[in-house]
Amino acid sequence: MIEDYKNYIKEDETLDDLQLKGIHIIQKTKGFRFGVDAVLLANFAKSKRSSSIMDICTGTGIVPLLIAGKKEFSKVTGMEIQEDMIDMAKRSVIINNLKEKVEFKCSDLKDLKYLKTLEKVDVLTVNPPYKVYKSGILNVSDKDAIARHEIACTLEDVVIASRILLKDNGRMFMVHRPERLADILCTMRKHKIEPKTIRLVHPNSKKAPNIVLVEGQRDGGAFLRFEPPLYIYEEDGEYSEEIKNIYNEDIL
Amino acid sequence: MIEDYKNYIKEDETLDDLQLKGIHIIQKTKGFRFGVDAVLLANFAKSKRSSSIMDICTGTGIVPLLIAGKKEFSKVTGMEIQEDMIDMAKRSVIINNLKEKVEFKCSDLKDLKYLKTLEKVDVLTVNPPYKVYKSGILNVSDKDAIARHEIACTLEDVVIASRILLKDNGRMFMVHRPERLADILCTMRKHKIEPKTIRLVHPNSKKAPNIVLVEGQRDGGAFLRFEPPLYIYEEDGEYSEEIKNIYNEDIL
Repeated sequence: MIEDYKNYIKEDETLDDLQLKGIHIIQKTKGFRFGVDAVLLANFAKSKRSSSIMDICTGTGIVPLLIAGKKEFSKVTGMEIQEDMIDMAKRSVIINNLKEKVEFKCSDLKDLKYLKTLEKVDVLTVNPPYKVYKSGILNVSDKDAIARHEIACTLEDVVIASRILLKDNGRMFMVHRPERLADILCTMRKHKIEPKTIRLVHPNSKKAPNIVLVEGQRDGGAFLRFEPPLYIYEEDGEYSEEIKNIYNEDIL
Repeated sequence: MIEDYKNYIKEDETLDDLQLKGIHIIQKTKGFRFGVDAVLLANFAKSKRSSSIMDICTGTGIVPLLIAGKKEFSKVTGMEIQEDMIDMAKRSVIINNLKEKVEFKCSDLKDLKYLKTLEKVDVLTVNPPYKVYKSGILNVSDKDAIARHEIACTLEDVVIASRILLKDNGRMFMVHRPERLADILCTMRKHKIEPKTIRLVHPNSKKAPNIVLVEGQRDGGAFLRFEPPLYIYEEDGEYSEEIKNIYNEDIL
């Protein structure tokens, strides 16, 4: 971390240690803060030393920052429509001294003309808003609402953008909710991103899954593989060994 | 069971006790015999006392016979394209004295004109062939091959037939392989049978699922619910309590 890091943090923000090679993230004290979904997504994504990676719906940049601490890659770019989030993400890059490998862009993933001008990537990650937008939401400029509901983009917008951004046979990794699985698989197929791997995440081995991780391949052939389930807790209420390994134990 | 049951069994057949209200099934000594899939499907299907039920791809009639022993219903009909299997199923009905509530028809589910003449049902069950047909199969008249590969009907044929056979808002229950889940969900949606419930069946809690149970509703609204996973074995290698309850323990 750079020495004068305090100059980059605003009054209503915190600097949180990811317990991963010293990497920190700037987040709002109140408001949307990263959760287990982002950590599981960064862990689920597969990449090589030569991989270029794009994370869309990046928010304050948690997935690119986790990837920077966890994965092999050549370059990771985060894209987000909300300017103040990108501003935080860019300051996180400065503080962590990651300018050479991590970049953030403030763009609308529905701006397909613009997306087509970008260099295509090997790997795409996305933690999109989960909930179908219903007109009942009062304040659609609310940042939490934008992060959680399909206000600024729908699942289909995400898949269309992913297809444009990925190289031929490039891989997309998504974290979402199991109740949207039919939507996810059918929308991916509709836009020729073939579902290849599914991993379900359960609170524990007795409970229904509440998170799903899906890997798709641009123009891939049809063959879907399920991975063994991931449990957050053991039956005794302790974090599972796998979760302890995914997180640094200190952060739990 | 009727007294002269032995007159109804051929030399190359066995009579197997389902350990369920005395119900027996005639099966070939060698050849396709019912497995855990049929038992899990009959258990997963939901019905009421007033329900009419159709089981397609019924084979030797295991699912209707299990339903007759396990479930509330008014009438259950099994449909199968292979005549000799229907002949066995019909003899099982006679032996078990179930003529008033269980019926079998030898029909091709691709004969949509005929299907449209049938009375629509509340509940449909199906344990279809799992494997995509590849031209490598040498003997397509082989009964095992027909039961396991999409030779006589594809997944899409099954879903099209189900839509015709079901009443408005009627429920379809299918057992299949997880690697076909994208095919299942997308084909159901294509033909307006909305996936409503998914249950994954795992050999044990550490392993990836190898069976999937899917409930769909004809013209249902989009909301998909995952049930807690079902494990066949506990970690110590014993059958799980739930499997012991689904089967009669004596049969295990």
